[in-house]
Amino acid sequence: MMNYTAFEDCGLKRSLDILSGKWKPLILYHLFHEKEIRFIRLWRKMPRVSKKVLLEQLQQMQEHRVIERIERKGFPPEVYYRLHRDTEWLGPALQMLEHWGKGR
Amino acid sequence: MMNYTAFEDCGLKRSLDILSGKWKPLILYHLFHEKEIRFIRLWRKMPRVSKKVLLEQLQQMQEHRVIERIERKGFPPEVYYRLHRDTEWLGPALQMLEHWGKGR
Repeated sequence: MMNYTAFEDCGLKRSLDILSGKWKPLILYHLFHEKEIRFIRLWRKMPRVSKKVLLEQLQQMQEHRVIERIERKGFPPEVYYRLHRDTEWLGPALQMLEHWGKGR
Repeated sequence: MMNYTAFEDCGLKRSLDILSGKWKPLILYHLFHEKEIRFIRLWRKMPRVSKKVLLEQLQQMQEHRVIERIERKGFPPEVYYRLHRDTEWLGPALQMLEHWGKGR
């Protein structure tokens, strides 16, 4: 019998937990299609979701190193989001999942 | 603004929804390591989970064509589970996710 620790270490479970969630797959989808995106532009591309909820999702994704938040100094400063380099590497895997999920 | 229908059609969201869940990543993990597996053997490989819950998870995975249930006639008949052919095709993607998830 597998113990809990080994289970928690399962990278697949961890990945799926991190990437799942109500809005995260769609955020990923947009970030794979634009190199970097401003918050307001991303928000406009989403179905009806509040700014508060979108921001929370982005913050969680930052914590899990799925995406990065970039601040460019200026008047006013501009904030962009983009994929973390490791997540870019995941591109082919996510494309396969996208394909597999269609019609399921 | 993207509408709800388009969002629900998003294959990536669908895949992640189907593959996530408390036990599914671990079930997948075992099914990728054994060509086919009997229920009782799979259950013994899992951390503490009731047979009822494991069976429910397997039934959901069957409905979503993630796995297949095979009955071999005999005395008594034997039941095996194995990956659906389409899911075998997902192998490289799941390996990438496994790798990406480690240490996250």
